[in-house]
Amino acid sequence: MEVIRLPSKMQSWALDQRAHGFTLAVVPTMGYLHEGHRSLMRIARRRAGRVIVTIFVNPTQFGPNEDFERYPRDWERDRAICEAEGVDVVFAPDVGDMYAPDHSVWVEETRLSRGLCGAYRPGHFRGVATVVLKLFHLTQPHVAVFGEKDAQQLRIIRRMVRDLNLPIEIVPGPTVREPDGLAMSSRNAYLSPDERRQAAGLWKALQAVQARFAQGERRAAALIETVRMELARTAPSAVPQYIELVDDETLEPIEQIRDRPALLALAVFLGTTRLIDHIVLSP
Amino acid sequence: MEVIRLPSKMQSWALDQRAHGFTLAVVPTMGYLHEGHRSLMRIARRRAGRVIVTIFVNPTQFGPNEDFERYPRDWERDRAICEAEGVDVVFAPDVGDMYAPDHSVWVEETRLSRGLCGAYRPGHFRGVATVVLKLFHLTQPHVAVFGEKDAQQLRIIRRMVRDLNLPIEIVPGPTVREPDGLAMSSRNAYLSPDERRQAAGLWKALQAVQARFAQGERRAAALIETVRMELARTAPSAVPQYIELVDDETLEPIEQIRDRPALLALAVFLGTTRLIDHIVLSP
Repeated sequence: MEVIRLPSKMQSWALDQRAHGFTLAVVPTMGYLHEGHRSLMRIARRRAGRVIVTIFVNPTQFGPNEDFERYPRDWERDRAICEAEGVDVVFAPDVGDMYAPDHSVWVEETRLSRGLCGAYRPGHFRGVATVVLKLFHLTQPHVAVFGEKDAQQLRIIRRMVRDLNLPIEIVPGPTVREPDGLAMSSRNAYLSPDERRQAAGLWKALQAVQARFAQGERRAAALIETVRMELARTAPSAVPQYIELVDDETLEPIEQIRDRPALLALAVFLGTTRLIDHIVLSP
Repeated sequence: MEVIRLPSKMQSWALDQRAHGFTLAVVPTMGYLHEGHRSLMRIARRRAGRVIVTIFVNPTQFGPNEDFERYPRDWERDRAICEAEGVDVVFAPDVGDMYAPDHSVWVEETRLSRGLCGAYRPGHFRGVATVVLKLFHLTQPHVAVFGEKDAQQLRIIRRMVRDLNLPIEIVPGPTVREPDGLAMSSRNAYLSPDERRQAAGLWKALQAVQARFAQGERRAAALIETVRMELARTAPSAVPQYIELVDDETLEPIEQIRDRPALLALAVFLGTTRLIDHIVLSP
């Protein structure tokens, strides 16, 4: 396994592999890798002759009061995980090599980014779209694998690929959960033992919604109320930032599920830790 | 010479040529081709085994009160010119194939686009950067040739290539001028015979600035006043939109030329026709 730090070196390696006829897959990550990332690497491994994992805690997607500085990092462990998953290249650039001091070009998605997390994290998806496009140009992939857990991000990246005509197939990887249902996330490391226990309530609440939907409930208000009640019961310390029902494609809020899939998404704080999860409800 | 209309077909052609080891050059244009475009095609021809010319009047770079509808078009003539210049592929997509009805991803350059034309054409460079990036993804060039005439555009595209890590060399093509000095532009076709005569005054004014600079003048106010006086003399109907002296790299206004190249740029209206020109002053 090769570790590449310099963007220019990453790009020439990728272009060279392409010129030799290899199919390239990339798994963009912020490191502190867990089972969820490993599952994305395995999907990538099945899809391509060369697998690149990028590890980059991207400052431009963090707000000024967010957790960029304290975001967990463990380079040696990440490296060992990539090696164990048969990754060909880990691309782990320095911030200063990714952003010039006078960096001034940004990718803005103007519709899907408005609501949900975008409403509470101004600039977040601009930072995500920009860095993902940069990483795409640097790693020249045929295939890119993203976790379904970051539902809004996945939809925005797909939209970017469509609208900017990128010749890249976006492959979603199913959310990997802890035994109690908590979606795997590097940020789970922030949770105290009590918060960690309560965190399982997010998934319990979403399962309760799934059950009500299966029984025929289609009204947003009722489905959202189910989440609130379940959360209050199973995660009493959880402070919801949002709980919303939106169209799965446009991400516009809907009052009622009719003939199109809907996304029930939520973000909650447990202490200072912000957790997100979602469920897709397909009529 | 092949004419391609569909974006998907353009991209698969380009990727296929790349896979076969060819070097690709692209010349993005809005058509109504003139000697300036031909000189760019010749530069492209010298640099690559395959030359692509794109012809696309991009609606997203025109303001609501600008000349998108009446922008001159002459497909048969353009096609003949490309053929004569030994172009391999003309890519001339339909607007509806380039922009989905719910298109929502834009490339924003936030520094270099603020002043000069950007100040008077809000959204213009967003449209330019977005369509150029789309065309880059569709034509997969190693080299892209842009006219120096659109000085701000050229600098923004170079910045985009740097900040988004595109593996593309941007090659500038010198401005081609009519015998009387008027920079070639498809928009010159709008000019009445009298306006056309006066239009030569732009270049005369810039030459007068060059002469004063050669004599040692370094103050913005004096150089700009030279342009105003020369324009008043040689193009009395011309209404300047802006005449500015800026740093050639940052495009920030400067009061005095010191140790870095400066750009003296102007936009003037002759009747309803907006013309731009510039000169680089290198100490």
